[in-house]
Amino acid sequence: MPGSEERALGVHRVLEPEGVLPQAAVRLDAAPAVGPDEVRIAVQRLNLDAASFRQLSESCGGDGAAVRSAVLEIVAARGKMQNPVTGSGGMLIGVVDAVGPESPLGLEVGQRVATLVSLSLTPLRITDGLARWDGRSEQVPAEGTAILFARSIAAVLPDDLPDAVSLAVLDVCGAPAATARVVARTGARSVVVVGAAGKSGCLSLAAARAAGADQLTGLVRNDAEAAALSASGLADRVLVADATDPLAVAAAVGRPVDVTVVCVDVPGAEHGAVLATAQGGTVVFFSMATSFSAAALGAEGMAADVTMLVGNGYTPGHAALALDLYRSSPGVRALIDPRVGE
Amino acid sequence: MPGSEERALGVHRVLEPEGVLPQAAVRLDAAPAVGPDEVRIAVQRLNLDAASFRQLSESCGGDGAAVRSAVLEIVAARGKMQNPVTGSGGMLIGVVDAVGPESPLGLEVGQRVATLVSLSLTPLRITDGLARWDGRSEQVPAEGTAILFARSIAAVLPDDLPDAVSLAVLDVCGAPAATARVVARTGARSVVVVGAAGKSGCLSLAAARAAGADQLTGLVRNDAEAAALSASGLADRVLVADATDPLAVAAAVGRPVDVTVVCVDVPGAEHGAVLATAQGGTVVFFSMATSFSAAALGAEGMAADVTMLVGNGYTPGHAALALDLYRSSPGVRALIDPRVGE
Repeated sequence: MPGSEERALGVHRVLEPEGVLPQAAVRLDAAPAVGPDEVRIAVQRLNLDAASFRQLSESCGGDGAAVRSAVLEIVAARGKMQNPVTGSGGMLIGVVDAVGPESPLGLEVGQRVATLVSLSLTPLRITDGLARWDGRSEQVPAEGTAILFARSIAAVLPDDLPDAVSLAVLDVCGAPAATARVVARTGARSVVVVGAAGKSGCLSLAAARAAGADQLTGLVRNDAEAAALSASGLADRVLVADATDPLAVAAAVGRPVDVTVVCVDVPGAEHGAVLATAQGGTVVFFSMATSFSAAALGAEGMAADVTMLVGNGYTPGHAALALDLYRSSPGVRALIDPRVGE
Repeated sequence: MPGSEERALGVHRVLEPEGVLPQAAVRLDAAPAVGPDEVRIAVQRLNLDAASFRQLSESCGGDGAAVRSAVLEIVAARGKMQNPVTGSGGMLIGVVDAVGPESPLGLEVGQRVATLVSLSLTPLRITDGLARWDGRSEQVPAEGTAILFARSIAAVLPDDLPDAVSLAVLDVCGAPAATARVVARTGARSVVVVGAAGKSGCLSLAAARAAGADQLTGLVRNDAEAAALSASGLADRVLVADATDPLAVAAAVGRPVDVTVVCVDVPGAEHGAVLATAQGGTVVFFSMATSFSAAALGAEGMAADVTMLVGNGYTPGHAALALDLYRSSPGVRALIDPRVGE
């Protein structure tokens, strides 16, 4: 019988191999009966991780029916939708339909929620054969059940926003929350956001402003993004530079800033971010393409006394903060809405 | 002709690809002629990064001659000792034998120094075929030349300590300096050091104590290390657990702590460190084997509100702090001296 902390992490649902955390598991028990601290979700839609969907689609030669079969086989075999090649999952939305008496998540039956922990660790059972999905989009209409553990995270979907908008915002909600915290804790005035016209970038600019920073620079990759970012009014200064060219970034930014936030999902942005940051400043890496050793050795090699943070996707209140920034900032909406087809 | 800031970073020594910083370069120009702001070191010894040496040794099946050949091939091909698999380097000691008239480092010909920037960005030429090295130790007697840039860091070796000791201490001096800073800034009381019997681990324990932490836990991998750490008196509590088994680490640590410092050079220590750390606490990753995505996604997946720092090898004053901890702490000496064969 696992201890309560192990249960909270979902270790009791791991079938193979024994003793690992659910994300590292080959196979989970996705049975719909809820334990005392669990929550069951009636699934409505899966949102596959972009890298996972691309891999599946390419390996099936773009044949939608084959992609659908592949997803069904993965879920049946693993008890979760974790692409065995990419290791990634995605997220889902659905309706709470059972809450164990000891669940600390504060959810109620009937609430519509999005899970903010990865599908790669979420027990999942599919019951409709994905009959409504053509296998050609990351958005997967689905019926079935998913299980949340005591130490999972789910956000109640707001009534005032389309689901697609909520999902787009919640997908990156860790970045603005972490940016706000760093700015508030350090009293930073000047901030550079690298990749500022994207979802996490524009939300991070708005979060930095709300937290008190007043010299905001958005760095983007081309003139089209620069025009969109300038029009949004989120940045005091808009720069165009290749984020992976450290010397170009340093030259564009000029005087180094208090905080640099990296939101571009391309490898090689570490050194430019370090050079853009003043001695004593902070770099927050939100890109999954970040190389730990490139960051660590790069800062050392440049004798850069900067604090470097691994962007943590979880900060308490992150979902509400991001949704509020979307609601309150016309500039954020102007940049995010075109990305969700609104 | 590169600008002075670019020169200071060594960009003029990059042969391939053009326009990147030396650490990101595939190949550097290691020619011994010094530029106006450069310093040349007559190399005496290399100290390979632990993760790099382990990877080389394992990939060569522990065959020392093969490891030696591998290092020679890397240096010949790249103009620097940067392991292409781990991305890491190490450091070196030698004698200053040429100083450009515009070098700001304050070094003089004849001084014995250790370089505190990584070998992964230091132009290096080896002239003795590493004939005095058996390929079985991270400490590599070597002859050749290395180049320091204007924005490099080197520490003059102290007269009162054997070279091997200074090198061993300086190699890891970023860890105690960063640990001290985190403890001081956050007011942390409880600290777990993972890999506490090693060089960076024991120095980090001593630094945490000096910075005000008073509940120090050292986590080690076996009973022999536990006995040595206990005898040193550096930790208030000594635990034996596999750092790569998250649940074992969490169970051993029990009540999570304010700060966790990861000093083990093995992959897979991220999740255990996160679980060992209290909500609102800080993890400092000093292992070059750290996976950025494992840390970021692991913390999110466990709803862990922890600040995660990329251990920066450079903090102002780091060399002096580490050497002083060695001099003042019998416990540190007891753990480090056997590792340097004193």
